Amino acid sequence: MQPWPACQIGDHIDSVDTPSLILMLEPFERNLERLMQASGGLRVRPHGKSHKCPDVAKRQIAAGAVGICCQKLSEAACFADAGINDILLTNQVIGERKLKRLRALAERIKLGVLVDNIKQINELATHMTGLSRPLDVYIEVEVGGNRCGALASEVVGLAQAIQEAPGGCLRFAGLHCYQGKAQHMRQPAEREQAIATAISIVKDAVDRLAKGGISVPCVTGAGSGTFWYERDSGVYTELQAGSYAFMDRDYGDNVKDPSDIVFENALFVKSAVMSTPRDQVAIVDAGLKASSLDAGPPVVAGRTGWHYLKASDEHGVIELSPDTQADLGDVVMLIPGHVDPTMNLYDEIICIKDDRVHEIWPISARGALL
Amino acid sequence: MQPWPACQIGDHIDSVDTPSLILMLEPFERNLERLMQASGGLRVRPHGKSHKCPDVAKRQIAAGAVGICCQKLSEAACFADAGINDILLTNQVIGERKLKRLRALAERIKLGVLVDNIKQINELATHMTGLSRPLDVYIEVEVGGNRCGALASEVVGLAQAIQEAPGGCLRFAGLHCYQGKAQHMRQPAEREQAIATAISIVKDAVDRLAKGGISVPCVTGAGSGTFWYERDSGVYTELQAGSYAFMDRDYGDNVKDPSDIVFENALFVKSAVMSTPRDQVAIVDAGLKASSLDAGPPVVAGRTGWHYLKASDEHGVIELSPDTQADLGDVVMLIPGHVDPTMNLYDEIICIKDDRVHEIWPISARGALL
Repeated sequence: MQPWPACQIGDHIDSVDTPSLILMLEPFERNLERLMQASGGLRVRPHGKSHKCPDVAKRQIAAGAVGICCQKLSEAACFADAGINDILLTNQVIGERKLKRLRALAERIKLGVLVDNIKQINELATHMTGLSRPLDVYIEVEVGGNRCGALASEVVGLAQAIQEAPGGCLRFAGLHCYQGKAQHMRQPAEREQAIATAISIVKDAVDRLAKGGISVPCVTGAGSGTFWYERDSGVYTELQAGSYAFMDRDYGDNVKDPSDIVFENALFVKSAVMSTPRDQVAIVDAGLKASSLDAGPPVVAGRTGWHYLKASDEHGVIELSPDTQADLGDVVMLIPGHVDPTMNLYDEIICIKDDRVHEIWPISARGALL
Repeated sequence: MQPWPACQIGDHIDSVDTPSLILMLEPFERNLERLMQASGGLRVRPHGKSHKCPDVAKRQIAAGAVGICCQKLSEAACFADAGINDILLTNQVIGERKLKRLRALAERIKLGVLVDNIKQINELATHMTGLSRPLDVYIEVEVGGNRCGALASEVVGLAQAIQEAPGGCLRFAGLHCYQGKAQHMRQPAEREQAIATAISIVKDAVDRLAKGGISVPCVTGAGSGTFWYERDSGVYTELQAGSYAFMDRDYGDNVKDPSDIVFENALFVKSAVMSTPRDQVAIVDAGLKASSLDAGPPVVAGRTGWHYLKASDEHGVIELSPDTQADLGDVVMLIPGHVDPTMNLYDEIICIKDDRVHEIWPISARGALL
């Protein structure tokens, strides 16, 4: 924890201590509206793993989202504690210790969870027997991400196993079909092709279920880099974009097609120059503990000739173009390389409106890994 | 924050929830002793940025360390709040807001800070005037890391400026000469050569100061991958190793020379298999929010044929050798790719002795970025 606050409500942005996580409320709110407008009437269930912040989730729901997704059980519990009562846990939950907690959470809120394996369904059924209402269970389908997920040929058997759980404690709620790899394919044609493949797998799975007499209440998936393809598929019914509210350098690097839905950068790491050791080099106080490097370095917003070259734990190295100078204390606003793990480094989001600190939102599920 | 604890004191390690950060106390304590034995009588000031945990710092000091290093002012304040009263802040501190805090901290504990620029010394002097005892100021020297730091040719002017601060509010405490890049050069000869270069720069700086009539009270630096070279230099007087207490995959990848001082892996991320989607693939519940990827992926300890291939935010992909199988719930102990940013993802260290949870230590300075 920080031993003192970076700022107070009402402070000018210039006086916010560094490094700090800054959300510009106006582009953020425009991003929320833009996703709803672009959703084509599909249900929108933004991913809470991107921000881990109940205040963000509440604004997403106020804008029209049906609820949120979470990736970890403990993350979902943090959101539930803050009053979010419709959560899809887009992950497998394994083991008695976790399943007891899952059951307790399912008694409190409308909760969904993923499966991709018959053993897991059996374990889930054992632990959910006697639940006061059925748990929503979604089959995760492998649609090209090459991570978790069952094959289309396996979904009928899995759906039947869900339906046959003792006392109807599990409800087959639909298919989870997220193509994560497609989100950062740089060329629009690559993304479109990857999602076309995903859609064909989803259609195959839905057809197999229909032949088995099983209807699919929901097909959920899609991310900020592709959701307009899933939206227009005729088979997806729910969109899970997460980064759209904030955006990052990695999404910024995607080459855009005129028909792409583009969002604004709303999230920044405010950082300051702490050393100017050589010509054309400035060292800033935001390293990889302030802006995650997993998807590459951040970029400097609004300053031409400033190139964030590399980071160590607490230092960022800025290369300056020959006609550019930096001085101690100069401020840079960094667009993070990757929103999700960067948000997970901070305890709060400092929200700016009209150049002033308007609100400070706790990132309540920061570090909720269990 | 996690909404529930991963374990209780006395629990068997098998029942600790996943993913969790695990410290094996026996190798940890042997590592602390080994550094002291290998220090050659030099002062040892381990780097607190590696662990951000006052309980670790207290054990390092109990083992013989003179104090600790920190990298951020707010980090130092967290350690001071926990009773650590001798801290070298191995970084530049810029701007009025931070310097007021620095001054307040310097009134509470024995504090040192780095400078590499005359403007910064002047700003420091302005804010420290009237301090009840002089602030220890170290000149950071560029010794090959190519980050912050003054040239050897600049140290006399900088030391004089420190000595001339109004009312003697600053004390020239020595030179900070850390060669960070050398720590992970894979070949011993490369590391030795890089430190030989650093040593020659340090000697040049010390000679120049001596000619200027300025003695150097302390030369501080060195890391877990090279400190025996600095120890034997005849010019370094204080060692700053940090990772030695825990070790990680990145240090493990260094090719060792018979004369290298080698430490044991004491820190692990406990993780469990949550999906077995295909033959020869297992997905574990520790991704890059559980084990930082900045220095590459973690490795699986003690299981042959299990290769941690890649991570996304909350998933780790394990490749299994052809004769190997994984089942849901199987546990893996991961050696993190890089200790420092991994420690910064957790709120506590779960300490294991005789297979039981012996203590749980808060990572008090986790997220202390200011």
